[in-house]
Amino acid sequence: MRRCRNLLRVANSSYLLTRSYTKLSVDTINPHVVRLEYAVRGPIVQRAQELDLELKKVRVALKFSILPQGTVKSFEEIIRCNIGDCQAAGQKPISFIRHVLSVATNPQLFRNPEIPEDAKMRARRFLDSCGGSVGVYSQSTGVQVVREDVARYIEKRDNLTSNPMNIFLSSGASEAVKVSNISANLQSLIVCHFSILQLLSTGRDGSGRAGVMVPIPQYPLYSATNAEYNAYQIGYYLVESDGWSLDVDQLEEVLQQNRDKCVPRALVVINPGNPTGQLLSVSTIQRVLEFAHRHNLVVLADEVYQHNVYASDRKFVSFKRVLHDMSGSLAKEIQLASFMSCSKGYMGECGLRGGYCELVNFDPDVQAQLYKCLSARLCSSLLGQLTLDVVVNPPEPGEPSYEVYQQEKDSVLNALKLKAALVSESLNALPGFSCNPVTGAMYAFPQVKLPPKAIETAKSKGMAPDFFYCLSFLEDSGVCIVPGSGFGQVPGTWHFRITILPSVEQMKTVMHKLERFHTTFLNKYS
Amino acid sequence: MRRCRNLLRVANSSYLLTRSYTKLSVDTINPHVVRLEYAVRGPIVQRAQELDLELKKVRVALKFSILPQGTVKSFEEIIRCNIGDCQAAGQKPISFIRHVLSVATNPQLFRNPEIPEDAKMRARRFLDSCGGSVGVYSQSTGVQVVREDVARYIEKRDNLTSNPMNIFLSSGASEAVKVSNISANLQSLIVCHFSILQLLSTGRDGSGRAGVMVPIPQYPLYSATNAEYNAYQIGYYLVESDGWSLDVDQLEEVLQQNRDKCVPRALVVINPGNPTGQLLSVSTIQRVLEFAHRHNLVVLADEVYQHNVYASDRKFVSFKRVLHDMSGSLAKEIQLASFMSCSKGYMGECGLRGGYCELVNFDPDVQAQLYKCLSARLCSSLLGQLTLDVVVNPPEPGEPSYEVYQQEKDSVLNALKLKAALVSESLNALPGFSCNPVTGAMYAFPQVKLPPKAIETAKSKGMAPDFFYCLSFLEDSGVCIVPGSGFGQVPGTWHFRITILPSVEQMKTVMHKLERFHTTFLNKYS
Repeated sequence: MRRCRNLLRVANSSYLLTRSYTKLSVDTINPHVVRLEYAVRGPIVQRAQELDLELKKVRVALKFSILPQGTVKSFEEIIRCNIGDCQAAGQKPISFIRHVLSVATNPQLFRNPEIPEDAKMRARRFLDSCGGSVGVYSQSTGVQVVREDVARYIEKRDNLTSNPMNIFLSSGASEAVKVSNISANLQSLIVCHFSILQLLSTGRDGSGRAGVMVPIPQYPLYSATNAEYNAYQIGYYLVESDGWSLDVDQLEEVLQQNRDKCVPRALVVINPGNPTGQLLSVSTIQRVLEFAHRHNLVVLADEVYQHNVYASDRKFVSFKRVLHDMSGSLAKEIQLASFMSCSKGYMGECGLRGGYCELVNFDPDVQAQLYKCLSARLCSSLLGQLTLDVVVNPPEPGEPSYEVYQQEKDSVLNALKLKAALVSESLNALPGFSCNPVTGAMYAFPQVKLPPKAIETAKSKGMAPDFFYCLSFLEDSGVCIVPGSGFGQVPGTWHFRITILPSVEQMKTVMHKLERFHTTFLNKYS
Repeated sequence: MRRCRNLLRVANSSYLLTRSYTKLSVDTINPHVVRLEYAVRGPIVQRAQELDLELKKVRVALKFSILPQGTVKSFEEIIRCNIGDCQAAGQKPISFIRHVLSVATNPQLFRNPEIPEDAKMRARRFLDSCGGSVGVYSQSTGVQVVREDVARYIEKRDNLTSNPMNIFLSSGASEAVKVSNISANLQSLIVCHFSILQLLSTGRDGSGRAGVMVPIPQYPLYSATNAEYNAYQIGYYLVESDGWSLDVDQLEEVLQQNRDKCVPRALVVINPGNPTGQLLSVSTIQRVLEFAHRHNLVVLADEVYQHNVYASDRKFVSFKRVLHDMSGSLAKEIQLASFMSCSKGYMGECGLRGGYCELVNFDPDVQAQLYKCLSARLCSSLLGQLTLDVVVNPPEPGEPSYEVYQQEKDSVLNALKLKAALVSESLNALPGFSCNPVTGAMYAFPQVKLPPKAIETAKSKGMAPDFFYCLSFLEDSGVCIVPGSGFGQVPGTWHFRITILPSVEQMKTVMHKLERFHTTFLNKYS
């Protein structure tokens, strides 16, 4: 502490005494930013981009019958299993969404007979509710008719009432952007609670800092947001041996362990799970909600994969639905924020940025403060809002686009279901691998036992062993996956996240490549 | 301080001892959020919305020949002069932008003969660079070809080189959303610098907090962002008697006055000005840059109104251009971030969210950290990026859309020029009013002398006098303008911001209404 006080004195005095211009440097910017890690776009993904460029050069060289320079690769293309970017993996957009968007942006297409009438109707209704153009600002919380449609969608899903006043739309349609934009606002509301007290407290080294509980493994967005807002992160482990479920005894334990380091304020749960691909049971959700109630935690439920459920005997049940059925005062007390997006599901519209957040049991004054925060950003993308509107209000039976919409939707979801089974079965057949069934979301997160020699080699290169494994697989086979260390895992265990988004044929290729690579890897390091 | 320490103790102990569930309340959430104010969407705008609804009800009642209930208004519509929302004020979108967007969202339109070939070409080039669909994630900093086009646009504008690597695209296309998204990231980088030292320092009451200099009056986005990140705001006055210019002596003075309260880190300049509508001279920009250099400040230049210049003898000169011409080491040292958007200018595409930020002279490692922050948000709206691409790369002479594009552009800018003159002249003709010429942006920010009796009446109602004036004007005439107190002003002076976006005819009506209202107001309170 003394060192820091001195640092501060030095910083102030040197500032006052000298006048030489010094730029911002990594040592002088926000240390939380420096701490931030974002694995799904980390060094392995960057290396994949480099390889992709090399392959392109080789293709151009071969086209002109020039012998390519450098090492020739044993693969011809990069297969990206690193990010939940459906359309980048070859998935076709849902035609109806694009019909609606094209008419809304270019109203002269209302005269075009190729655009179905139900698409025109939705575009017309949206335009009527926002002054006739997608180029205007909407209310900060989003266009009224979209929030009404979202409320109806939630009512139908949960068989519960939903009030459009408790819903706000976000500019992020992609999983991360959306949730980050929303949760950054919410987090700013929640996590800084003690910051003024903290400022004036006498160096308790973080006590009084707001604590946010996040799963391990977890999608790195949450740790990134916590880093930005200087929240104290309390990690809790998902139980791999129980299908990546939550264990409330463990939640209690880590909360106790961290109580002197922060004031716990919020609990993040991702269901279906990212990167873990599991669907939580109703009883687990109940226990989690009781835990949140015992400890006064706001529940941030990331439910962006609610359309992505593959287990044939299971269905998605929302946190709100489970909350409503709780006994006693809990149902009326627990504050819940649920996030949804158009980037995942069957639509996969990552680039269009549409999402919503529903607030349950929030104090109206607090909600007003949150909406005030949103107003400083004016509004989210109108085309993202419109995309969301189509997702929550798809063509109904009898409408001209109904059948094609259903066909396209089923085709995507059926293929995902097939790939979910394919991937977990193929992985479990490999020596040293164990993989929970992929019951939801778009990922598998297998555990792989690495031979001691591989672990030593990795460490000698200054790499985490799972990073070394993933990088070796990329260099060998051109497949890009993300090491478990980017998401967090029980120390001494090694995992990776693999998406199931490339086509069925490509996923089969990936599994064959992995089998070949893994055998060679084991031979080399055993 | 003792009180706060006690508060902290109470908060912690009550938390540990009791188990009753307490919701977040306004007293327990982030106090910076509670402090935040956002005038352009404040209470007067909410009242305008209420009035609008009432008017609609009256129209419906009259349609069915029912006598409307409640007070009959002396106006038939609300004219919104409160927000820079061009298309909401009746401005038509630029056709070419919408052509490109519709083809890019719905590629079956490539076969449509009504869409011009140059629009198809731009859509094709964009799609080719992002894997064939606007539904994918781009690089975090934005699609490569767009950043290249932005660099070329800047090169042409400034006659200076520009590197696409120093440009990143933002999800906000509207003035505020864009700048806020960008500057929130930059601010997070800059303002929290001392937060860890601060955490450990012994209650110096904010010393060590990062200081950000912002103009008064200023667009409330900046104060909102500072509030969110707990930066210390150092306001500097724009000099009304010198056409809202900056006075470097005053900048030095306020910096000295606030030095013990913070460590100054950044300086925000808005040019052309919002809400003040002025264009800064090259010599003013030079002096401001020298000042920033003397005090190690990062310059945040909000240049979103660079297309909105109305003085016939003046043209927009960018901060980057002026910086480049500085002598000595300054040109290579001063760190500058320049912001641009597609929401303003002649295009006014507020809802589509496209903007960019160019970084000049930033340390590459710091830039890498900023880009890492951006990657946690994955990328900005692809359609916002595409809109920006069209703005920086419009149809060239010889292309099929060139003439219509120019016509539409000129028509908007000529009308704005006409209204800029109309508004400042009409205002200056009113007793007690003085208004600087509107040389840029989309606003006038006149000063109005209010009679003592009006000031007393306002205070007795708990309102700022200019708030009272604007609210009275709204209730009397249905015109929505924003009081100067929402932007900041020299104490004892009263202003309001009025946009020049409604049609020429409407602006004439607004000026007549204001003249009538002002006369009555003066009579009533003299």
